Formats: sequence, structure tokens, C-alpha cells
Amino acid sequence: MLQFDLLKTDPTSHARRGTLTLNHGVVQTPIFMPVGTYGTVKGVMPRSLEEMGAQIILGNTFHLWMRPGLDVMKSFGGLHGFEKWDKPILTDSGGFQVWSLGAMRKITEEGVHFQSPVNGDKLFMSPEVSMQIQTILNSDIVMQLDECTPYETNGKKTTEAEARKSMEMSRRWAKRSKEEFERLGNPNALFGIVQGGMFKHLREESLQGLLEIDFPGYAVGGVSVGEPKDEMLDIMQHTPHLLPANKPRYLMGVGTPEDLVQGVADGVDMFDCVMPTRNARNGTIFTRYGDLKIRNARHKTDHQPIDTSCTCHACAGKSGVSWDDGGRDGFSRAYLHHLDRCGEMLGPMLTTIHNLHYYLNLMQEVRQSLDAGSFAQFRAQFKSDRARGI
Amino acid sequence: MLQFDLLKTDPTSHARRGTLTLNHGVVQTPIFMPVGTYGTVKGVMPRSLEEMGAQIILGNTFHLWMRPGLDVMKSFGGLHGFEKWDKPILTDSGGFQVWSLGAMRKITEEGVHFQSPVNGDKLFMSPEVSMQIQTILNSDIVMQLDECTPYETNGKKTTEAEARKSMEMSRRWAKRSKEEFERLGNPNALFGIVQGGMFKHLREESLQGLLEIDFPGYAVGGVSVGEPKDEMLDIMQHTPHLLPANKPRYLMGVGTPEDLVQGVADGVDMFDCVMPTRNARNGTIFTRYGDLKIRNARHKTDHQPIDTSCTCHACAGKSGVSWDDGGRDGFSRAYLHHLDRCGEMLGPMLTTIHNLHYYLNLMQEVRQSLDAGSFAQFRAQFKSDRARGI
Repeated sequence: MLQFDLLKTDPTSHARRGTLTLNHGVVQTPIFMPVGTYGTVKGVMPRSLEEMGAQIILGNTFHLWMRPGLDVMKSFGGLHGFEKWDKPILTDSGGFQVWSLGAMRKITEEGVHFQSPVNGDKLFMSPEVSMQIQTILNSDIVMQLDECTPYETNGKKTTEAEARKSMEMSRRWAKRSKEEFERLGNPNALFGIVQGGMFKHLREESLQGLLEIDFPGYAVGGVSVGEPKDEMLDIMQHTPHLLPANKPRYLMGVGTPEDLVQGVADGVDMFDCVMPTRNARNGTIFTRYGDLKIRNARHKTDHQPIDTSCTCHACAGKSGVSWDDGGRDGFSRAYLHHLDRCGEMLGPMLTTIHNLHYYLNLMQEVRQSLDAGSFAQFRAQFKSDRARGI
Repeated sequence: MLQFDLLKTDPTSHARRGTLTLNHGVVQTPIFMPVGTYGTVKGVMPRSLEEMGAQIILGNTFHLWMRPGLDVMKSFGGLHGFEKWDKPILTDSGGFQVWSLGAMRKITEEGVHFQSPVNGDKLFMSPEVSMQIQTILNSDIVMQLDECTPYETNGKKTTEAEARKSMEMSRRWAKRSKEEFERLGNPNALFGIVQGGMFKHLREESLQGLLEIDFPGYAVGGVSVGEPKDEMLDIMQHTPHLLPANKPRYLMGVGTPEDLVQGVADGVDMFDCVMPTRNARNGTIFTRYGDLKIRNARHKTDHQPIDTSCTCHACAGKSGVSWDDGGRDGFSRAYLHHLDRCGEMLGPMLTTIHNLHYYLNLMQEVRQSLDAGSFAQFRAQFKSDRARGI
């Protein structure tokens, strides 16, 4: 099931506030979804995800197909029981990962033949196979199989003809995805994905085709695939707000904190990105007042937490009281710097919690500002805060 | 400060039940102390350590001297504030690590000249330096600098003459350690370390020398240094119960669950070992019913937790109710097997919690049996349970 209730719209932008009811619970939108590729958000306990307010997380169909495999997933009745997460899950189609295999895969109208990167087995992915796997995973939101149109290939930009060809196949795959999804009696919700590369009229044609098939939710794919930032922002400003107003809109694989706030203004309800988790493991930390490299020597003796205003477990510790409010239980920058230098696991464990908390809290503040009718002021404050530096 | 209260002794063995009051709190003995080398028990949040009942943890003087260094430690007023652990801490002397540097160090009566393995700096460790560093770390229990007498060197067993020479130097270093500890006005407690290799009369001579210096607690060192198991057990049966009955006894670097229970019977109050944490990261798991390799293919589809009777967060999840008591929140063996195969951080995070919980809970059961006067029955049950297999 999927029910989307639009609670409020922002008069100064395309931003919207809504609730998304799925088989495993209700999601407040706009929302950021942490990525849990192999059935785990890297380095984070499920209970920590709950504590930081995660409402829905991602799983990667391709990865879970390879390991642990469908027999295991089937025996657990899907991904929820396996990874001990009882709130909603969205799975991608596996298309992006298959496409990323490069020379190891061959794409045809029927589907994609490829070699398993795990054991070399010859495998086949198609709209039907993707639906069958995602039905076993029992994710609350299922994504159609699409072909991700690249921005460029070997330094050569994708032409309009190539983008059209790719988009048209994705559209046909959307239809086959829906037919198989329905044939399987999948009780969850299937999203269509708008493609078309950097060509706005192709984006519109793609959307038109998907609307004719009819989905309970729509995504914008094929952004954040290597294009210059201004072209990404151009597509973000063009496409999302054209999607049906009464259905959830998902911008795939985006992005920085700035991208998220801009995406909300462009009418997006749902985001996912590996950036907060991956960057945390590399010691790059997001905060209200800008980004911070914990590896930097200036942190060596700093007793302050990452962000003195933050209430995540890394910054506020077991009391949950921020440094600014007098709490002194948080882990210091000096300590995180030390853990990073020593390659200690606790370093990425704590920085991942902070980064995800930051992303989730940012979206909560976005929702609060939408509820209060003050999104424009929020954006201005966000921009000046982020520029302040930390 | 250090106050040791002997609460009860076991009539069937040398086992004792006590409480150890230190500057940062009270420790119930017998106790296992998790090892936190670089200011972190690898892969475990401090709050998880508290949840699993850790009462005192270790820090490694040598490692913390190298990284983050004494300026940082000094600025935090010691290790507690740095690593956000407010219960007792014991630090080793750094002697074992310096000794382990092999060709990179030169041991003289005055102390040990060595090259920093981190940056190649020429450094010097002595009883005085060790006390100075441990005073900065402000650990509740400080260990004297000793020379760890090896069991063998390049395949040649240590002779009695060599063991005597080493033990006598350690005894002189004990005296220098105490003098420097007192000169520094360190408010914590300094332990002497019995050496003497595998020679019982040397162990007794070592102890006699330490008693003349007078320490508030005594340790048995130089076991678990490569000797055959029967020789280790022989020393364990010989030495600990000769240590003063009214002071805490610490067996350094030991051992398996069986070693711990045997050690308690031999009169030991305190243990530390990297085994539960290190083995967890290699997928070797300790349980009431024997050890288990999570990498084994037989776990691939097993829905049960590691141990159905266990209440750790890995086995019982957020409810804390064991599988045997109807709880189904724990992480399955299939999931842990999958995380291990995929090299996911969450795998060692969960198995480390389980292994430490097992060790800490084992010691709690030991204490309960001592309180109840049923330690002999406990040992018999422990032995048969561990032999059952899992």
C-alpha cells in the first residue's frame, strides 16, 4: 500500500509537506533516507538509526541478490526481519549497479546479461527479475528497472539521440516492471523513474509515458551521474515540480545538504545519498556551520564536540544534552581526531552517527519550517549558517 | 586510593569474592577487564560497555604515549575525560609493548632505549617515565614497570639464570616505580608484578621482594607469553594464592573462559585479555555452550541468534529478551554470517558486544556462585555446558 497526504505547500517555492503511509509505517516528508547497501547502514546499529529519527532506509537489490542471496532473503520473509529494521524500506531496482559493471555487462531490450562480481556466475537482470527480487525483499517501495543514462561515456557527452533511445527503453521497462509487479501480487508500492539525461523535453516525454502507465509515486533518476553542478541544478529545477502533485516525488542519489534544501524548494519529497555515511568514514563531517575534516591537525587538542549545538550521540554523549546547553558528555574533536589517526572503528561509528543525524535533523527542521510557514526564512538562515564556517 | 574488602572465600578452592574501591568507583571481584588499547575498546561505544556491565577497563600506556601523546592526555586531565569513561581504569606500564619491539629496543638497568614505531623518534622508557606517564593518564590502577621474561627466545627456552636476572631487575624497577609514584603524589594505586618465568622458587623470591617494598595490590605477569598450556596452569596454581589474601590479585593477559574460571579457583581477582575483542573481529565467538565460528557455512540460513540463552544486544536486540524467553529482536547467525562475508563493520560491532558480554556475564555468574556458596557446582556446570557444543 501507499497513501500520500499533502499537508501543506510553500507559497515561495515548490516545497511541500506531506505524510507517506506504507506497509511498515508512516514517513513524514520531505525525508532523507540513509543507504543500507548490504542490509546494514555501514557502521550503525538499527537502534542508533531509530534514535536519530530515521523513518525509512534503503536497501540495494543488486547487492542483496549477490549476498546473502535470495534463498536467505526468502527464508526471512524479506529484508526487514533479516536486518532487524521494522520501519519502511525502499529498494532500488539493481539497474544502476548492473550498469556500473561496465565491460562485464551487456544491455539489450530484453534485459542485462552480466557476470557476478562475487563469483563470476553468468546472470541476467530484467524488469521481471528485478520485480521478482524486490518482491522477495518485501520492500515498502519498489523501484522500476531503468537504464541509467550516463552524462558522458569515455569523455564524450551523451547525445540527444542516445538519451532518447535510453529513455524510451526505460519507459518500456517501466511498463514491464508494472506488469510483473502486479502479476506477482506484490502488496507494496512501485515507483516509476523519469529519465532523459540533460534534455528537458526528453524528461517531459519520459514523464508523460510514465503517467500513462500510472504509478503511485515517481522518481527522478539519472542525476548526480557526473554532470556539472549547474546542469544538475537545472534538471532539479525543471523536472520534480512537473511530477503529479498528489504523489510522492523522489530525487535519486542526491546529495549535499545544500542540494537537499534546494531539492525541497524544487518540490522533492524524498532523497537518498551515500554521502553522509561514506564521507563520515573518510573523516569529512557535515555540520550546521559548514563541513569539517576531522583529520586536520587543528583538532588535535580541541575539547569541543564536532558541533556544540548538536544533540547526536557523538556530540552530546549519553546525556543527549548539547555542549551549548551545558552538556559535557559528547566526544571531543581531539578524541575523534585521535581515533581517525589510529584507524579505530569507533571513529567512523561516531562520525557516521553525527553525519546521519545532521541530515535527518536538517530534514526535520525543513519540515518544521514548512509546518510553520517559514521555509523561506529557514533557507536564508541555513545558507548563512552553512557559510559561517566551523 | 584503593580499598579491598574480602567478602567471602570458597571452601573448595582458593576462590574469593570481594569489592575493590578505587577513585572512580567500586569494582565487584572477581572481574574481567576489557582492553581499550588506544583509548577505545575496539568497536564498542562506552555506553555499550556500561550496558554490558563493564566495571573497569584497561588502557595501554605505551600506545597512548605514542598517540595521542602526553600533551593531549594532560589537557584532558587523563584518560577518563578523553575517552568518556567515568568508571575505573587500569593502565599497564608500557613495559610489555616496549619489550615486544624486539630489535628496535635496548634494555639496560636504567631503562629501555627504543625507536618510536610511529615516527622513528628515539625514546626512553624507565620506571620513572612509566610512572610519570601513568600519572598523567590518571588511571585508578597503575602498574610498575617490569621486564617481561620470555618463555623462549629464538626457540631457546629461558634458563633459570636468565629468568633470575630478569626477575631481579624487575624487582629493582618495582622499588624505583614506587619511589617515583610517591614522589609524584599520584593519588591512585600502584601494583607490583611478580615475575620469575616458569621457575616457582623465583616466583616466590620475586613475591618476597615485592612484599618488602609493599604494594596495595599484586599482579602475576609473564604468563601467557608463549608457554605450553600445562606450564601456564602450573604457574596459575602455584603463584596467585601465595599473594597476600587481603589485597587484590591480578593475573595479567589471561585468557580463555576456562582459564578465567580456573584462575578464580586459583585465587585470582582480576583478569584482562584481548581474546574476546580480537576473536570477535575474526568471527570467533564465545558462548556458554562452546565456541562458534560465524564464518562457517552452516550458519548461512540460521535464524537463531548466536546463543539462544544470551541477553546481549547482538543476541536479544532492543528488547533485551533472550530467544529462549521468547524474544525475537536479536540478530540471527545468518545475518552475522552475511555481515562477516561482506566485511561490514556491523559484524565485529555485534560480535564484540556478544563476546565481551559473555566474559563479563561469566564473571558475574562466578560472583553469584561465590555469594551463594556454590562455586564448586558452578564450575562443574560450566565445564559440562562448555563441552556441550553449539
